[in-house]
Amino acid sequence: MVQGSVAEGFESVREEFAAVAVAEGGDYAAQLAAYRQGERVVDLWTGPEMTGDSLTGVFSSTKGAAHLVVALLAQDGVLDLDTTVGHYWPEFAVEGKQDVTLRDLLAHRAGVVGADTGFAIDELADDRIVAERVGGQRPYWRPGTAFGYHALVIGALTGEVVRRVTGQSLQQVYEQRVRAPFGLDFHLGLPEAAESRFLTTQPMLPTPEQQAELDEGYTASNSLTGIAFNQNHPKAVELVELPNSRVVRELGPASVGGVASAHGMARMYAAAISSVDGQAPLLRPDTAAAFAQVHSLGYDLVLRQHHGFGLGFEALGDKYPLLGQGVFGHSGAAGSLAFADPRSGVAYGYNRRRFAFPGGPAPENERLFKAVLTAASP
Amino acid sequence: MVQGSVAEGFESVREEFAAVAVAEGGDYAAQLAAYRQGERVVDLWTGPEMTGDSLTGVFSSTKGAAHLVVALLAQDGVLDLDTTVGHYWPEFAVEGKQDVTLRDLLAHRAGVVGADTGFAIDELADDRIVAERVGGQRPYWRPGTAFGYHALVIGALTGEVVRRVTGQSLQQVYEQRVRAPFGLDFHLGLPEAAESRFLTTQPMLPTPEQQAELDEGYTASNSLTGIAFNQNHPKAVELVELPNSRVVRELGPASVGGVASAHGMARMYAAAISSVDGQAPLLRPDTAAAFAQVHSLGYDLVLRQHHGFGLGFEALGDKYPLLGQGVFGHSGAAGSLAFADPRSGVAYGYNRRRFAFPGGPAPENERLFKAVLTAASP
Amino acid sequence: MVQGSVAEGFESVREEFAAVAVAEGGDYAAQLAAYRQGERVVDLWTGPEMTGDSLTGVFSSTKGAAHLVVALLAQDGVLDLDTTVGHYWPEFAVEGKQDVTLRDLLAHRAGVVGADTGFAIDELADDRIVAERVGGQRPYWRPGTAFGYHALVIGALTGEVVRRVTGQSLQQVYEQRVRAPFGLDFHLGLPEAAESRFLTTQPMLPTPEQQAELDEGYTASNSLTGIAFNQNHPKAVELVELPNSRVVRELGPASVGGVASAHGMARMYAAAISSVDGQAPLLRPDTAAAFAQVHSLGYDLVLRQHHGFGLGFEALGDKYPLLGQGVFGHSGAAGSLAFADPRSGVAYGYNRRRFAFPGGPAPENERLFKAVLTAASP
Repeated sequence: MVQGSVAEGFESVREEFAAVAVAEGGDYAAQLAAYRQGERVVDLWTGPEMTGDSLTGVFSSTKGAAHLVVALLAQDGVLDLDTTVGHYWPEFAVEGKQDVTLRDLLAHRAGVVGADTGFAIDELADDRIVAERVGGQRPYWRPGTAFGYHALVIGALTGEVVRRVTGQSLQQVYEQRVRAPFGLDFHLGLPEAAESRFLTTQPMLPTPEQQAELDEGYTASNSLTGIAFNQNHPKAVELVELPNSRVVRELGPASVGGVASAHGMARMYAAAISSVDGQAPLLRPDTAAAFAQVHSLGYDLVLRQHHGFGLGFEALGDKYPLLGQGVFGHSGAAGSLAFADPRSGVAYGYNRRRFAFPGGPAPENERLFKAVLTAASP
Repeated sequence: MVQGSVAEGFESVREEFAAVAVAEGGDYAAQLAAYRQGERVVDLWTGPEMTGDSLTGVFSSTKGAAHLVVALLAQDGVLDLDTTVGHYWPEFAVEGKQDVTLRDLLAHRAGVVGADTGFAIDELADDRIVAERVGGQRPYWRPGTAFGYHALVIGALTGEVVRRVTGQSLQQVYEQRVRAPFGLDFHLGLPEAAESRFLTTQPMLPTPEQQAELDEGYTASNSLTGIAFNQNHPKAVELVELPNSRVVRELGPASVGGVASAHGMARMYAAAISSVDGQAPLLRPDTAAAFAQVHSLGYDLVLRQHHGFGLGFEALGDKYPLLGQGVFGHSGAAGSLAFADPRSGVAYGYNRRRFAFPGGPAPENERLFKAVLTAASP
Repeated sequence: MVQGSVAEGFESVREEFAAVAVAEGGDYAAQLAAYRQGERVVDLWTGPEMTGDSLTGVFSSTKGAAHLVVALLAQDGVLDLDTTVGHYWPEFAVEGKQDVTLRDLLAHRAGVVGADTGFAIDELADDRIVAERVGGQRPYWRPGTAFGYHALVIGALTGEVVRRVTGQSLQQVYEQRVRAPFGLDFHLGLPEAAESRFLTTQPMLPTPEQQAELDEGYTASNSLTGIAFNQNHPKAVELVELPNSRVVRELGPASVGGVASAHGMARMYAAAISSVDGQAPLLRPDTAAAFAQVHSLGYDLVLRQHHGFGLGFEALGDKYPLLGQGVFGHSGAAGSLAFADPRSGVAYGYNRRRFAFPGGPAPENERLFKAVLTAASP
């Protein structure tokens, strides 16, 4: 049963979410939220233990929060996208990475997607350890010739640039400039006090056919994909374990360690492009456009499939033909997706507790955001 | 019934065209023409109302005429391919397009595939309006990282460069240097006197299965594809309406506004590479090779599929394995295709009145040009 | 029946090879060899006339030997990867290739994949003739925008750079620095005395279904693919004829003219990364990593499919998800494959006498190297 509320005109979103819940069945637990022009218009949830204020790990949707910080600093002129990473962080400028710009790094073009040694879970939780180990490495491809998803490390790398320039961690800047002013339930570093609202992430329950499909996609632990997903570490960590580990929740690594509710995610994207509670939008339209601009699109060497990125955010419009040009956001492993659509003024957030097949944004997102966008621009 | 004539040795082309006519059935109306070493060897037509001198809208095959002009000006040294567009046209050098060269623009790499506001049909007909509106925009992708078909605007953009440098419109230069000297029935701007020979373009008549396939390819009106095809304008214009509108025919926008017969198209490409009626070939072999050279090949962000471009022309050899390296030409939405093959000295032109499924060059072109090439080099 | 020997722990490799032999049936004749940390652990062969010391044409696996030479010269500082080819070889710096670096050339990005005139077989055997004819050509695509397999010419081009810098042919440097010191049965230029051990290569015997699939992939003789495989020469040479021609075996063209046994190939890659017979590894780890680094990955304009290259070597890890990052090697037309895996210390070599469907590395390689790698790191 779907709980929560929708604004007038968004009743169809509740119906669609209810239909998804029926289709998913079992112990499906999820939250769906949306804003329009800075006003909350959808705030729904369903499933056992789930409330509107429950918090779950949002995996790579975290990158949206992290790179909103980078966008703010670029907007302020504190960071310059076309300056080399090495200018800000000299230790990065080695092994053929001397010419890699901040823009290249944000577009997943730098080539340092992991570390030859891999990471223990408490190392992976600490962006400074990740940055130090990965930043000094030889890139796995020649920078400038390809791109690939820096799945578990991008936020540590861009975060290190933030730290070198501001003297603060990306997480601190996020807290001060984004999370606290809007009271967002989207945390990079979950305070002890909020732990009681956290629900653990649950592993995927693939059917035998789905498992066979997953097995077919197997890659060696020291393949490029294996390295990017840290499968090359002797104690390889399953993704599902990350948010379920307190050290990850506490440190909130900027690539995958965020903990949020759907309304926390939607509100963050609303604040990015709209006036929320009378505050000015965080981003100017040209900043949003610059970060939404397609920078890498085609074959992703890590994902081994077609994918697209803007700057720090995913280029969602190519994957989803129903989304307009200029939409920026990010999806996460268990199935979450959140984005802002500057044209319609819509901000969308969705998360779920159990990993959806086949990984990445859950398929039901397409039904759900279609319902939201249709209701928002009837 | 196929009408017209073929040179000795090209009887098989007539037979193949007749077979296509039978297969197409219904109200199929089309023209097929070919030259070899500057001599017309095929001039055929079929279908209701159609004559050898009938004129139809050739949509993007227009780009072949437009960029023959650019090739001529590059050959003359009037335009330099590796100079920035902004050098010729300062208003273009904004929003991250400062380093975009004329070569990049011709290769569909500039990223300004349309306008955020879209165009009314009379605006779309006027290359100066299109150029002004699109030229100042932020590119939809980072120039240098991708390419995509500038379907309705490329000719306005390259045409603006022509205008800035020569003081004449691309259409005027085309008329003086290409169309008039060879008496081509391929018009960028159809004179009133030729209107009586014009046949309106007819819409596609997809089967239910074909319609379902088309529906599957649906993209939002403000997606990159939607913008490139002007679906984001409040009064979105169906492609089929373009040549059926007198303002489009009159102004002959350089991207999609050309009106021609098949022999007009074939004769233009023949004149480009061969001596026609004793006149010198328009292009030197190295100019033809430079414009035929592959410049963009892979995933096209607008077409959302694999595609290839030379400079202003399509890189047809990748799409059609039967075409040799160095072939240059262009296809159009209703199904037209025209090209020159410098190796064999063949020039090919085909157009049809009714939109063919699935859009772009009609499938029958492969049968037809295979027949022509085989007859030409037995 | 499989003959030869395996080290303790590699019995499963013999079983897998025997299973392959049963599956292949007929006149299947092949060799399989592997090293671990510089020690031979697999040396097997099977089939009529085949012995462990038989020699067969290894086609493009030759490129692995050729580019091991380039890697050595780069390691010595004799060659600089980021210097233009034209610096070393001024005649190359024409027709828009002025900025092409040695790195670009090694990554199959230069665009000169063949010659407009094609080559007679005795010309194709002579790297100097190939280099002179191809080096002066206009590239078939704009350098910097794409890549494609320089199938029959890459070794002549990189070899010409070697010759200009060292005054010796690539084949001579290979003989002195690689083949002779390790007594490798992998020859670029087969001495008369070894001719008695040479077995001719046998043509593919496709089933009707396979033949239909091959026919579907047909490309015109003067298409980019046709040119790259020399099908545009009046006396087009079938690939299978190359090693069967004495002039090819004698001159050992660096792209496709190598003759080897499987243990010769495996031993070469072992010597590249390990201490063999007490000698130092030929390559330092950073040199191996630099040449294994992905440089070109995506749509290959010649192969008309997804493919990947490092520098001179193939980027095998993308094609084979079971291979780790950093593996470097090359495959060949009849079905051969050889590579080094610096992580596990494994070197692998396989060749077969009869062309395997569909061309390129034979499908059985995946079974065989999986068995080797599994046995090597139990």
